[in-house]
Amino acid sequence: MLDFIVSENEFNKDNIPWNGNRFLIGNGYFGIRGTLEEYSKEHMCAVNMAGIYDRAGDAWRESVNAPNPLHTYIIVNGTKYALPETEPKSHTQTLDFKNGLHLRKTQWQTENGTITIECERFASMSRRHLIAMRYTFFADFECEAEIVTGIDGDVWDINGPHFVKIQTGTQGSVNSVIGTTGEKNISVTAKDCTSADFKAEQTTDEGEKTVYRHFSFKAEPGKEYTIEKIAQITTSEDDFDVAGEIDKLTYSMLRAEHITAWERIWDISKITIEGDDEAMYALNYSIYHLNCIAPREMKGKSIAARGLSGQVYKGAVFWDTEMFMIDYYIHTEPEIAKTLLQYRIDTINGARAKAAEYGLNGAYYAWESQEGGYEGCSDYNVTDVFTNRPMRTHFRDKQYHVSAAVVYGIMKYIRGTGDYSILGEGAMEVIVECAQMYRSLLLKYADKPYYEIHDVVGPDEYHERVNNNAYTNRMAKFVFDTALEMLDEFEAKYPEKIKALDDKYGLEATKAMLKDSAEGIFIREPDNNGIIEQFEGYFKLEDVSVDTVRSRLLDPKEYWGGAYGVAANTQVIKQADVAAMLSMFKDDYSADIMKKNFDYYEPRTEHGSSLSACMYSLLACFTGNTETAYPLFMKSAKADLVKGGKEWAGLVYIGGTHPASEGGAWIVAVNGFAGISEQDGKLVCRPSLPQNWKSMSFKLVYRGTVYKVNINGTKGEISY
Amino acid sequence: MLDFIVSENEFNKDNIPWNGNRFLIGNGYFGIRGTLEEYSKEHMCAVNMAGIYDRAGDAWRESVNAPNPLHTYIIVNGTKYALPETEPKSHTQTLDFKNGLHLRKTQWQTENGTITIECERFASMSRRHLIAMRYTFFADFECEAEIVTGIDGDVWDINGPHFVKIQTGTQGSVNSVIGTTGEKNISVTAKDCTSADFKAEQTTDEGEKTVYRHFSFKAEPGKEYTIEKIAQITTSEDDFDVAGEIDKLTYSMLRAEHITAWERIWDISKITIEGDDEAMYALNYSIYHLNCIAPREMKGKSIAARGLSGQVYKGAVFWDTEMFMIDYYIHTEPEIAKTLLQYRIDTINGARAKAAEYGLNGAYYAWESQEGGYEGCSDYNVTDVFTNRPMRTHFRDKQYHVSAAVVYGIMKYIRGTGDYSILGEGAMEVIVECAQMYRSLLLKYADKPYYEIHDVVGPDEYHERVNNNAYTNRMAKFVFDTALEMLDEFEAKYPEKIKALDDKYGLEATKAMLKDSAEGIFIREPDNNGIIEQFEGYFKLEDVSVDTVRSRLLDPKEYWGGAYGVAANTQVIKQADVAAMLSMFKDDYSADIMKKNFDYYEPRTEHGSSLSACMYSLLACFTGNTETAYPLFMKSAKADLVKGGKEWAGLVYIGGTHPASEGGAWIVAVNGFAGISEQDGKLVCRPSLPQNWKSMSFKLVYRGTVYKVNINGTKGEISY
Repeated sequence: MLDFIVSENEFNKDNIPWNGNRFLIGNGYFGIRGTLEEYSKEHMCAVNMAGIYDRAGDAWRESVNAPNPLHTYIIVNGTKYALPETEPKSHTQTLDFKNGLHLRKTQWQTENGTITIECERFASMSRRHLIAMRYTFFADFECEAEIVTGIDGDVWDINGPHFVKIQTGTQGSVNSVIGTTGEKNISVTAKDCTSADFKAEQTTDEGEKTVYRHFSFKAEPGKEYTIEKIAQITTSEDDFDVAGEIDKLTYSMLRAEHITAWERIWDISKITIEGDDEAMYALNYSIYHLNCIAPREMKGKSIAARGLSGQVYKGAVFWDTEMFMIDYYIHTEPEIAKTLLQYRIDTINGARAKAAEYGLNGAYYAWESQEGGYEGCSDYNVTDVFTNRPMRTHFRDKQYHVSAAVVYGIMKYIRGTGDYSILGEGAMEVIVECAQMYRSLLLKYADKPYYEIHDVVGPDEYHERVNNNAYTNRMAKFVFDTALEMLDEFEAKYPEKIKALDDKYGLEATKAMLKDSAEGIFIREPDNNGIIEQFEGYFKLEDVSVDTVRSRLLDPKEYWGGAYGVAANTQVIKQADVAAMLSMFKDDYSADIMKKNFDYYEPRTEHGSSLSACMYSLLACFTGNTETAYPLFMKSAKADLVKGGKEWAGLVYIGGTHPASEGGAWIVAVNGFAGISEQDGKLVCRPSLPQNWKSMSFKLVYRGTVYKVNINGTKGEISY
Repeated sequence: MLDFIVSENEFNKDNIPWNGNRFLIGNGYFGIRGTLEEYSKEHMCAVNMAGIYDRAGDAWRESVNAPNPLHTYIIVNGTKYALPETEPKSHTQTLDFKNGLHLRKTQWQTENGTITIECERFASMSRRHLIAMRYTFFADFECEAEIVTGIDGDVWDINGPHFVKIQTGTQGSVNSVIGTTGEKNISVTAKDCTSADFKAEQTTDEGEKTVYRHFSFKAEPGKEYTIEKIAQITTSEDDFDVAGEIDKLTYSMLRAEHITAWERIWDISKITIEGDDEAMYALNYSIYHLNCIAPREMKGKSIAARGLSGQVYKGAVFWDTEMFMIDYYIHTEPEIAKTLLQYRIDTINGARAKAAEYGLNGAYYAWESQEGGYEGCSDYNVTDVFTNRPMRTHFRDKQYHVSAAVVYGIMKYIRGTGDYSILGEGAMEVIVECAQMYRSLLLKYADKPYYEIHDVVGPDEYHERVNNNAYTNRMAKFVFDTALEMLDEFEAKYPEKIKALDDKYGLEATKAMLKDSAEGIFIREPDNNGIIEQFEGYFKLEDVSVDTVRSRLLDPKEYWGGAYGVAANTQVIKQADVAAMLSMFKDDYSADIMKKNFDYYEPRTEHGSSLSACMYSLLACFTGNTETAYPLFMKSAKADLVKGGKEWAGLVYIGGTHPASEGGAWIVAVNGFAGISEQDGKLVCRPSLPQNWKSMSFKLVYRGTVYKVNINGTKGEISY
């Protein structure tokens, strides 16, 4: 296996935020940012919890970071050695993403000689509450050394603090810090138990928000002194059990278990590419991230837009999950995909409440969905750089396409797994109620024969409040069609459940409504040039280049959209919109139309969203333009490997990992380059590999069977 | 008669812009700003032409200022004496608005003694092309004096220069400057002929854009030296003849004619109030302005929102005319009212073009209407103070209520004059096509039974793109109802013309459409508290005071509306909106409902438009709250008498006279306080005078008869 290693071999403090994302480890229950052991909140340290939210005061509601049980530093002859304060002699930070291990090695030059620390840690993939760390110190001279390690409850927050109460405690060799949130009184407990393989004076030091253990010893030259820590995070919201007492566990045992778990994951998910190491590396790095954040063995949980890399975007679940991530899980570990959808089923009440808030029927899923489907987005989601005022944006109220994405995700799951049981477990209601929501958006002019949808924000968020967004209308039609089809399936498969459904919705009337809507809705056709207008009036907007629009910025952090942003009244768009529609409904359009639209829209796209490049890449694949697709694929696959992603929307920090981009890269690789698609219930492979790719092989789960795909040049083979 | 004099008795250069408006004279063909004779473009000098427009480059299209034939100054012993440069010893500027005369007297102290100039001038009310001026100099010491007087073609422009070619000329005693506009090659000619009543050396001095006559003489102490000037303005667009050669006319003869003309005007228009000199003065001052700008003896011309005080608001005609000004003319000189409406009839093609531009049927009248109904408003009508960028506003595209105002004006004319002939002369088409326009706005949700109108800007411009604005929907219904009623009238009165109309519109289908629309449109009812919500969701907006909103301004010139203005997401409104609707349809609502809505909306109104106070005042009158109405009435009547009106919208200058406010004051006085209304084709008078008003009397033209109204206390009498 090619080395699956990300490494940085010198210290650069400007990279601290980026490295926090790039070197992330996680196990779906939490993510641990790739910060160093001695860091604290100033350096965006976080053990970011999945699905635990809190609101502090009037600020945005966001996910919660646990007390950090990894906080560790070294004192030598009374002087503390820590980054970034003390310049190192040498420094290496490494992510072994084959094994899910974070490593670092740092040397400092002291008056008397060189000291070295090495540390390895991991978020256990076999026991979801556990983190393990092995920390080693040595010096090339005799010295008085002290390793300080413990739990730091003074955590980094964007809109915190969330812990209104913090309790520290010690019990035998186990220390603990319990933070309790203000809004819902949720407790988040970090415990640690640290042991040394050498003789040391041990003391415990309990602060208001911290508890540390000090290991003091005289270090002999050249001898290694290692401590091992087992830490555990739990919350009062846990729906699964804690595995064992941490003082009974050993680092080496946990490490072996953990690596075995990763081996199992890679067995199904690894993609091998011959002839393009860089692509193989980036693609598998993307897959690594998707695995770090997958809610394995959890109930009804989904994935935040920035994964588990922090509180950006409020730790909320976006349409990203169903559009860009779920495909990977459907075809590697379908039970994870079901967990993601179960989250939508479980949170339908939140979507119903949101629909009701806007006077709509049915279910309107949140743009930023938190627990229970609570809409985390405020009406003021961007801060104006010129006035420092919150700007009234329409992400929350007008991105109606989110509900359709949920239905689209359900259908991908059903088609990919053949598992219709989800319909009987709540998905049928989701589909019908999403259709009801779209129905209540349908408008007809007094003297026109078709339904329109007005005043929406499509995927391209730079143009707010537009009419008949081609994407949104098409997705609404998809939902109507799907609801009709699935009601028939439901009736055939679950005759015993049909009465309850009929009592609830009135199926005859519902079907009539769906038929009328599906037939009546306005679907925009390509114009004389073959181009589908993104929305009513788009072609009348100023037609200038992305660079021209960028050159009009007065402030680099200025928001491009809204009513007056530099892009708002031009044809420059943020991300794939018509292109997304074409990729998703490729069978409705000729390759010629797809190519013409790619050629029109791609140069007008800023790719200001990580959801953009992969969609265009996929569209290019569908038109046979593999070489056009390739750089866009690489951009997607390398979203977290390359420094300098978009980190600001107005004055709001939006950095973090980009799982949608990573999921999108997987889709391009599998559905685009490898040309995997479904035909009459069977997988087919019509590959069109990039020029350098000699071969490509991977496994794929489809309808309960694990298939092997082997592609050599233009020849694809599917076996099992 | 009470002295109708506006006077300023000291010189304050900060007042120059305001005085330009306050001391304005005019005759409907042009307005002459109340600037001093020695001023030029720096001091906003203007002879502002009615209905002549030009566009220079990419700037806004605006009305054109003629070469200024009044430019005059004095040189004594080689030194020029002129304001504002040379501080005067004394200074008086006066408007005699009874006689339409502008006067000034200024003294300067020189080394050798005091010099004095006096000047009187007027815009001839009897001969619309003419201006006359008498200019007198004297000194209390012997000196060498030189009066320089001529035509200054270097005019003030906001978005100029408009004259791409300027020709100067002299012919006998007549000098001329001809400016030719760039866009449409319109020539504007100013001529002057100046004579002296004393011996002087006369020379002529022709510059590139100017031509001056110099009168040089030795002045004896105490002796007055007077020159008299007759000036003439003509344009290549004139539709009436020039009256006589200016070198054959005398100042005294023109002055006598002019005063007689004003006497005739005042005979019909003066309003006498006993017990409140201030109100009587302000009200008649308002009437003066309405007379200065009335297009008497002109064909199909209307009035700009800032009258003839300059190029602000592009010299364009707004709904102000039909809503706030036309009432005065209908009831004093109805032929002027007809001229105003003829402008709308003549410009229906412009309104058709605008409707077509937005994919609508029928006629959509311009928000800023220039010649031919051309829409003068751009999509970017405000400049952002923070970025200096043009802001995308929706004055142009979404103020659908303008078409209804035109129909409302037609109906006020027909009801007030009994003259249905206008229907046969084009007004019927206007009404039907405005109804067609509203028809094409009607939207119905798939499962709701009524029509809605979405995405509009109502009278309150601070809230853009709202749904079901109560005012707009009610006005649309009014247009549908009116069209139905007037089609019946038309059929009864012009049976010979009905076939042509039927061929054009298909009357049966049109009537069915009108009925369906009038019955189907959603009209918002008062809620449980008796309040009519201004638009969908208005009550959910932040409910804060006008002062709070004002306190949030970061820049005093900042625009309150648009997407992010300080008022945009609050309940603070710019001007009467629901209040306007209630005033206009008062018979539909109880006094209780009107009062409750007044009490709700008035405190939330910034009165940022001169159209606001009078509407609230009228509403207060209709609920019997005369004392609440009074200060709002005075605010309206004194709009141009009080310094400090709103002069900026973003970075755009919006100062000038406020004829809508003045017309509104007249409406309040006559329909509010005097309680004049129409009942079964007769005038009735149910007065409710403000406390101090002992009596009120005025004449009123109604259906061809001049009535006298005499009110004593609570008793009103109408006689003829």
